[in-house]
Amino acid sequence: VTASLPKGFAASGIASGIKADGSLDLALIATSPVSAVNCAAVFTQNLAPAAPVQLSRRHLEASGGRVGAVVINSGCANAATGSQGLAAAERMAALTSSQLGLETHHVLVCSTGVIGRELPIERIESGVPVLCRGLESSGAGLARAARAIMTTDTREKLASARLSSGAHVAAIAKGAAMLAPNMATMLALLMTDAEIPKDQLQISLGEAVDRSFNELSIDGCTSTNDTVIALASGMASVGGPLEGGELTAAFTAVCKDLAHQMAADAEGGTKVVRVVVTGAVDDESAGIAARRVADANLVKCSWYGADPNWGRIVSELATAKTAFDPDRVEVSYGPFIVCRSGVAEPHDEAALAAYLKGPEIEVRCALGLGEGSGEILSADLTHAYIDENMGLS
Amino acid sequence: VTASLPKGFAASGIASGIKADGSLDLALIATSPVSAVNCAAVFTQNLAPAAPVQLSRRHLEASGGRVGAVVINSGCANAATGSQGLAAAERMAALTSSQLGLETHHVLVCSTGVIGRELPIERIESGVPVLCRGLESSGAGLARAARAIMTTDTREKLASARLSSGAHVAAIAKGAAMLAPNMATMLALLMTDAEIPKDQLQISLGEAVDRSFNELSIDGCTSTNDTVIALASGMASVGGPLEGGELTAAFTAVCKDLAHQMAADAEGGTKVVRVVVTGAVDDESAGIAARRVADANLVKCSWYGADPNWGRIVSELATAKTAFDPDRVEVSYGPFIVCRSGVAEPHDEAALAAYLKGPEIEVRCALGLGEGSGEILSADLTHAYIDENMGLS
Repeated sequence: VTASLPKGFAASGIASGIKADGSLDLALIATSPVSAVNCAAVFTQNLAPAAPVQLSRRHLEASGGRVGAVVINSGCANAATGSQGLAAAERMAALTSSQLGLETHHVLVCSTGVIGRELPIERIESGVPVLCRGLESSGAGLARAARAIMTTDTREKLASARLSSGAHVAAIAKGAAMLAPNMATMLALLMTDAEIPKDQLQISLGEAVDRSFNELSIDGCTSTNDTVIALASGMASVGGPLEGGELTAAFTAVCKDLAHQMAADAEGGTKVVRVVVTGAVDDESAGIAARRVADANLVKCSWYGADPNWGRIVSELATAKTAFDPDRVEVSYGPFIVCRSGVAEPHDEAALAAYLKGPEIEVRCALGLGEGSGEILSADLTHAYIDENMGLS
Repeated sequence: VTASLPKGFAASGIASGIKADGSLDLALIATSPVSAVNCAAVFTQNLAPAAPVQLSRRHLEASGGRVGAVVINSGCANAATGSQGLAAAERMAALTSSQLGLETHHVLVCSTGVIGRELPIERIESGVPVLCRGLESSGAGLARAARAIMTTDTREKLASARLSSGAHVAAIAKGAAMLAPNMATMLALLMTDAEIPKDQLQISLGEAVDRSFNELSIDGCTSTNDTVIALASGMASVGGPLEGGELTAAFTAVCKDLAHQMAADAEGGTKVVRVVVTGAVDDESAGIAARRVADANLVKCSWYGADPNWGRIVSELATAKTAFDPDRVEVSYGPFIVCRSGVAEPHDEAALAAYLKGPEIEVRCALGLGEGSGEILSADLTHAYIDENMGLS
């Protein structure tokens, strides 16, 4: 998997020794040549935000949304680590900024990994100079950065898009569990060489996140560290600032691509499941109902077993605390309607069984109440998810 | 497991053929001699209530809360079955009432099993006469009824209590999954020979349910069929009506006993986990936070693996949408404080590892914000839960 970097960016990824197995664990995305550029960000709504989230929020405020580099470690979330954790995040930013010749508040920090453990700052102190020397503007640098932010991900996640002006968007992300509501519960970095006013950058990023990562739920858990950052170098500008709608569309496409990659790489997941609710009283209710279905363990287990147990789906729709009429609901798996007007609908059982065994299935729930619609991208709950999460990690 | 029946009750359980494996699947609790007595009930809040729930609500209203018998089948929930399902539930009540010589509205009906399948009413038609003939006032009859309401339960669940007046409470219950918020998401029947005014019976039952089944969550799923019914024969009355507080205490003790039995028999569960939240701004917030922790898959997997991963617990407390201060939280496993003031607290790791491997663990979360407290009884998420729920069932 490769994607080229937009103009004005360089990337790097190294193994600093935070991860015991010696795999890549320190990543850097920097402007090239180094300078502070327009930046937008969306952070977790978790009320115990990790130290790097606290620090990055503060730096964005201090810098007025101008950022020159983002340094990221995997293998340790630096969350629930108190004032010592905050000092470690500050040190990580300071080391990077001094290496690159930036003011400290122009550097953002992300961390991902186990909560409640101290960041091994000495590894980062020896790693950051190597990391900065390794910066390169090729796709190989970006691919290494994408690998260095992985935790339980089995593959790196990159996406890109071209804008009509010739400008370019590229992005990397990580996330395989603790993926759920209200902000992505993952890390993602978007880079574009388009020239974008700061306010528009934030608007486009917010809309893209709402329609991608916020429609993704693997296990209903919202992490302490989730961060999506967008940087705009402006170096591809040809005829002035880009039209906002085009940027939003490009960001949304890239974020949806990454969200799908995350669902496909969900911890232990064997299939991607799209839950679509239509006919709700409004879009918000539809989204809540879709999430209720997608997060229900009994439903997720049935997906794993390719069991067409639509009764569990109806039961979840009916406990989503949104309007529901059991006599109007229709449930379909892909093209197969299995429940109509709230009761079983005859269907081709062999064909449905084959469909449910596929790598990607769609569950459609038509509530028959109004025009609201919403969807959630999810995965099944499997033995391998248990394996992944029952051990010390 | 046995418990004797209070005076004025008889019970029965047979295999009618609803369950393919020939195990008991039809149960009856009746007054003896047959008469309509005071009855209270609490039903599921699911907006797609099963046909028997709809019918029982209607019969309670029509009879003014006077009930002579409760007939229950397992193996089929008779939910999401539309008008045909309601007719089947009505037929089940009518068959029972005519056999016993009661008016139909003095009979309540419960069903439990798979949602979305038609009730095999011909099995019930041939079974009900046998069921009624099998009524007996011994503990053996009650034990057979307790076995006949089981679905994925591995053992029958009975509990009893003595009142100071000499009156007696006995109860049976079933439930191993789809156990969660807002009413028990299971079936339970309480019988007492105490003389209790109807209003007091409902008050005592409601309080008991709130402090037992509503503090139980196995998988966060609320069923379509959950029903708790209490019948008071009044036949043990010696010195007039019982004091309400004593009945509430006895019902609560019995329901807590049954809730614990359900947690211990949770689908695939290897341990009972009590999540206690203290120091919340109020009791409601504490209950919400405890439920958030108890329902989080990442946390439930860590219990299965005896992994002292308190960071996941903090993260869930911080996303419960209730007040939270990451600098004040304290987390303990039993006597071992693992997180104080939001950061790791040194502890005896070997002793903690041994504690976490036990059959019953307590997770205490002190929020440091106020006087609110709440708790949820739960279980771990295991490979066997997946096995149980991935197949056609």
